[in-house]
Amino acid sequence: MQSILCAGSIALDTTRTPFATAERVLGGAASYFSYSASFFSPVSLVSIVGNDFPKEHWDFLAKRTGLDLAGVQRSASEKTFFYDSSFGYDLGGRTTNETQLNSLATFNPVVPNSAAENSRFVYLATMPPQKQLAVLKSVKNCGFSAMDTIEFYINTEREALLKTIAAVDCLVLNDAEVRLLTKESNLLKAGKKIWDMGPKVVVIKKGEHGCLLFYHGAVYPFPAFPLEELKDPTGAGDSFAGGFIGYLAKHGVERDGLTPAQLRKAIAYGSVMGSFAVEDFSLKRLAAIDAEDIAERFEQYRSLVQF
Amino acid sequence: MQSILCAGSIALDTTRTPFATAERVLGGAASYFSYSASFFSPVSLVSIVGNDFPKEHWDFLAKRTGLDLAGVQRSASEKTFFYDSSFGYDLGGRTTNETQLNSLATFNPVVPNSAAENSRFVYLATMPPQKQLAVLKSVKNCGFSAMDTIEFYINTEREALLKTIAAVDCLVLNDAEVRLLTKESNLLKAGKKIWDMGPKVVVIKKGEHGCLLFYHGAVYPFPAFPLEELKDPTGAGDSFAGGFIGYLAKHGVERDGLTPAQLRKAIAYGSVMGSFAVEDFSLKRLAAIDAEDIAERFEQYRSLVQF
Repeated sequence: MQSILCAGSIALDTTRTPFATAERVLGGAASYFSYSASFFSPVSLVSIVGNDFPKEHWDFLAKRTGLDLAGVQRSASEKTFFYDSSFGYDLGGRTTNETQLNSLATFNPVVPNSAAENSRFVYLATMPPQKQLAVLKSVKNCGFSAMDTIEFYINTEREALLKTIAAVDCLVLNDAEVRLLTKESNLLKAGKKIWDMGPKVVVIKKGEHGCLLFYHGAVYPFPAFPLEELKDPTGAGDSFAGGFIGYLAKHGVERDGLTPAQLRKAIAYGSVMGSFAVEDFSLKRLAAIDAEDIAERFEQYRSLVQF
Repeated sequence: MQSILCAGSIALDTTRTPFATAERVLGGAASYFSYSASFFSPVSLVSIVGNDFPKEHWDFLAKRTGLDLAGVQRSASEKTFFYDSSFGYDLGGRTTNETQLNSLATFNPVVPNSAAENSRFVYLATMPPQKQLAVLKSVKNCGFSAMDTIEFYINTEREALLKTIAAVDCLVLNDAEVRLLTKESNLLKAGKKIWDMGPKVVVIKKGEHGCLLFYHGAVYPFPAFPLEELKDPTGAGDSFAGGFIGYLAKHGVERDGLTPAQLRKAIAYGSVMGSFAVEDFSLKRLAAIDAEDIAERFEQYRSLVQF
């Protein structure tokens, strides 16, 4: 079992669906990733919260076994990153109502010494690409690194982003982001183009339609775990990444020891974790499951997919 | 091995993509279905063509082993059903430019006696629902029936359509049609609602995102076979249905002998046939493959999907 370093945002989310609204609940890519990955391996979280961050959220993360908050800064002068968004009836496309970067705007990630020394897996959640690269470089013995980004950085920081992408082993993006990054509409061609940018492993997330794994000349399609009771799609992709990287870290599968079989099992665990995350608002569902639930859904997923 | 009866349209298609245009090529749901299914089992085609139907297209179908055209009428006074449509750069959504029903408008399907006696499998491609039901009723010993429809009939012939749906074993629809039919946006819930309408087997086609199979309380997700060189999505769904029903007919899997394992293999063969169909315009690619190509892609698909 190897340790994971995750850098990225902790947020207060207000999420509105036609069925319910959750106000100022715990969110942020790094929260979802870390919590999800911590089912598999220890995670050091590098992030920032503001002076309004509720004690209950802090305690919720702090008490989580395997989750180390030593790298989470607490801004005395600024508020926590706040994100307000709405979903329509199909819980598909999200509309942003309000984004307040607050303390995240000037966040300078600092990796604690112990995490810099001991982490073998690194997940760079969405941040400015220069900051992602700085975090990656501060880890002494990284055995496998993965990153995410968003359209904003693809549009505004392309050069810096390409530099960061060239430095990681794995890029995890959604379909729209991949098309924007590669300027190629066919996802198969687009994913293969990313191989040329550096990452040997490419994962294209397609939300309710599953994902595509690109590795070593082949493309593996994964359907999403079929879910009838979807409540809030927020955090699905980051929880997915948490299960994916978490599984690799648990089994110590680093860049030099990758096999298609292990990567595919890791993706399947990612799909399982993503499917749990969307069953309730915030991290509520992830907080309610245990290793047995994960193992059970993994077997169910596997049995549904095989023919 | 059991015989299949397929009723539906033969068309002349003009299909425009940003990369190429095919004018007045052989198309129509029943053409694609029958040709695809004929790789697995003998097919009797019930349809109509007009007085402008090119001899080359007729000969192409007539010479196909296992495809019986005795039920294809030739209108002396009317032209062939003509459909002109365009795709955008992503070859996703289709725009209709022109529809001329021509001989299809007054088409009265007549099932030849031998087909009425001998067909055990029936596929009702898109037609007015009353005509679909009439075809089904004319088959003496149907062991398994499936049907497709389109938004037009869901909107304009709802009552008749529900009656036809109640009479078949299997409904094969795309995601938008299922949502419209059931008035339910969640596809899992929507598919299960269709069970209550009659069909024990429900297949929801999601194009490049694969499909969902609903059977006996369970939902099985299938990703699409990953294709880099897509030329024309026309006929994908009908070729899919051809592989699906074709496999069941080949192995004589009728409504009383269905198993999840056989249905899932049938769906996988459907996915394989759909993936071939879109690799070229019209039925060109289907005409270029043989049983070995199908077996090879099936194994490739299976190996890509398992984890």
